[in-house]
Amino acid sequence: MAVNLTEPETLSAVKGIRLSVVASGIKKNASDDLVLIELEKNSTCAAVFTRNKFCAAPVNVAKKHLQLTSPRYLLVNSGNANAGTGEQGMRDALESCELVAQHCGCSAQEVLPFSTGVIGENLPVNKMVSVMPALSEQLTDDNWLKAGRGIMTTDTKLKGISQQLEIQGKTITITGISKGAGMIQPNMATMLSYIATDAAVSQELLQQCLKQAVEISFNSITVDSDTSTNDACVLMATAKAGNPEITQNNADYDMFFKAICEVSLYLAQAIIRDAEGATKFVTLQVNSASTLEDARQVAYTVAHSPLVKTALFASDPNWGRILAAVGRAGVDFEIEKIKIYLGEVCIVSNGGRDIDYTEQQGQQIMNQPEITIRIELQCGDQSACIWTSDLSYDYVKINSEYRS
Amino acid sequence: MAVNLTEPETLSAVKGIRLSVVASGIKKNASDDLVLIELEKNSTCAAVFTRNKFCAAPVNVAKKHLQLTSPRYLLVNSGNANAGTGEQGMRDALESCELVAQHCGCSAQEVLPFSTGVIGENLPVNKMVSVMPALSEQLTDDNWLKAGRGIMTTDTKLKGISQQLEIQGKTITITGISKGAGMIQPNMATMLSYIATDAAVSQELLQQCLKQAVEISFNSITVDSDTSTNDACVLMATAKAGNPEITQNNADYDMFFKAICEVSLYLAQAIIRDAEGATKFVTLQVNSASTLEDARQVAYTVAHSPLVKTALFASDPNWGRILAAVGRAGVDFEIEKIKIYLGEVCIVSNGGRDIDYTEQQGQQIMNQPEITIRIELQCGDQSACIWTSDLSYDYVKINSEYRS
Repeated sequence: MAVNLTEPETLSAVKGIRLSVVASGIKKNASDDLVLIELEKNSTCAAVFTRNKFCAAPVNVAKKHLQLTSPRYLLVNSGNANAGTGEQGMRDALESCELVAQHCGCSAQEVLPFSTGVIGENLPVNKMVSVMPALSEQLTDDNWLKAGRGIMTTDTKLKGISQQLEIQGKTITITGISKGAGMIQPNMATMLSYIATDAAVSQELLQQCLKQAVEISFNSITVDSDTSTNDACVLMATAKAGNPEITQNNADYDMFFKAICEVSLYLAQAIIRDAEGATKFVTLQVNSASTLEDARQVAYTVAHSPLVKTALFASDPNWGRILAAVGRAGVDFEIEKIKIYLGEVCIVSNGGRDIDYTEQQGQQIMNQPEITIRIELQCGDQSACIWTSDLSYDYVKINSEYRS
Repeated sequence: MAVNLTEPETLSAVKGIRLSVVASGIKKNASDDLVLIELEKNSTCAAVFTRNKFCAAPVNVAKKHLQLTSPRYLLVNSGNANAGTGEQGMRDALESCELVAQHCGCSAQEVLPFSTGVIGENLPVNKMVSVMPALSEQLTDDNWLKAGRGIMTTDTKLKGISQQLEIQGKTITITGISKGAGMIQPNMATMLSYIATDAAVSQELLQQCLKQAVEISFNSITVDSDTSTNDACVLMATAKAGNPEITQNNADYDMFFKAICEVSLYLAQAIIRDAEGATKFVTLQVNSASTLEDARQVAYTVAHSPLVKTALFASDPNWGRILAAVGRAGVDFEIEKIKIYLGEVCIVSNGGRDIDYTEQQGQQIMNQPEITIRIELQCGDQSACIWTSDLSYDYVKINSEYRS
């Protein structure tokens, strides 16, 4: 059901990164659900996490470990979020790190745990115990596709991308995977995304790069306005490509940043293309706002409107619902000046339906699987672009049957 | 499909109010769609309207007319919202007032126009012309049930209530009707509600009474977070009951205010019981918040979460979604202190599932058609209570097929 999303056939290995994947039984359907990612020594690692106050136990543990030392291993399980699990959840997350430490010869602080799945059930760490030897022994550098699949929950498609660029004569590889289809309005990160590169980038610049890239990618998508308890996005750099370490905001950084943005944006948009029940991929472009905040507020209000989303599902050019959503966004503008476009067709001007607009024009655009709604507020110079999906029967089906 | 909502068998006449109802052809199915309400001279009238910036033409006209003089007639059409219609919409709304003025012998300023229905189509005023003689001649005081039905759009049930109380030995009657089922998160008013009383109440006190009553009733409900362009709530007082005019915040006012609150709350809750596709009537009670704003913010965040709403539809005690919504509400609290209840059953304490909670307990409550979710933030003394519905297949069906 995903909208114009093709699974990658290959994903490039990243020098200095090895991965292994097993089925531990945490997922009920016996598919892969446990992924271990190994970073070679002297790698740098940046991460951003959910701002949900009820953030999951592994998020708390990962944040703490990142403050203590540089990570060597990431342990990711799907099928259980270990969120809303109180003190037992913290003990379980720590225990999973200790398991990795025992089998891989590192300290528990060098392990970052991640979980995704049902909220409120205790993590069955005992299921990890028996598969840990296999997990630690099967690490290889060509396991990215399998890892991408191992972190999926309600996703229908594997999401991954590889990209190469050249910095100072050295070929840099970037490979990223992500998962997420529902409970998606990331706030500082998406559900789960792991991006690795063999570039040499200082810790400080890597964190800056991730933060800025996330802002215009993962933090600019919404399926259902529900910020998850487990969102995390990690950017790892192994320094194996041989480029001079990037330590300043120079031309090398700009090239690297641009590539990371492209990878992040692809992965973020892939989440929307595969959003629960999605039949449309919708771009909300808000221009000429007084402030960036206003622009984003208008974009998100339209993107979250159940009435706009059901009209999109129906391919119904019911532009009155878009106008009503813009009007209730709580943002100041003059209704006579604002223009609203479906694709390149102006639907609203002078406070009402544009004089040249015809229902047929609107219908033609709404019939497409990819739709751009552009709102020109005409009261400033700030813009925002976000991406969202429609609201279909299947969204209700998936989310009313999720635990059954 | 409405949740525990019975249509009233009778509605009491209110001395000084006459109503008439016709089918003008604005609604495509030939059912009643035009209602005229007459107020006797010397009545007072209070009103609140939507805060949507794209408010409909009739809202603009009604607000203007209210500033000029005291209204004698309310003209309400269903089937067309006359919103997003620019200058033509303003002309149409004014013309409809002039039509009433011609046939009823008043000035156009003494007429308030109201519209509800599809946004963005011009109001077919010509259809009003031919029925205006009948509309003006058939005014009677026992037409409340018919009027309640004439203002319906996607409503499946007529919403109305009558109540009597005694003030200074005089019997006061209050009768109210409302409509609304989707595009419901009123902001200062609901979709459309008309409440009339024969009490004598000064203009100033009547407006105060309405504003306060609306705050805890119509402004405390949400179906889908979409504030309509046409929301309006009108309170009319004809002064025919013979009570001494209420002009101060005294015991008479308190009694009157209490009765208006009860009527408003009944009508507001009726909208939620008949919400588009609703199978559940849900009360969100947030207590011990630092501020009223925080309490409302948490309540609305949970009420608007598509994941919470689909879990409610599925009767699934998926409390992790409630916890995740509370966590992303942007309100400060300590996760160890907060308690969340389903009905009287504590589901969350100490940052996770309450130690005594069983899935069976949660299931028992979720199986009910009426569900209370109570959140104790434990960081202050402010409370808020709002009402909402679930998100079902039928919500998607109704809103994806609305214009087809």
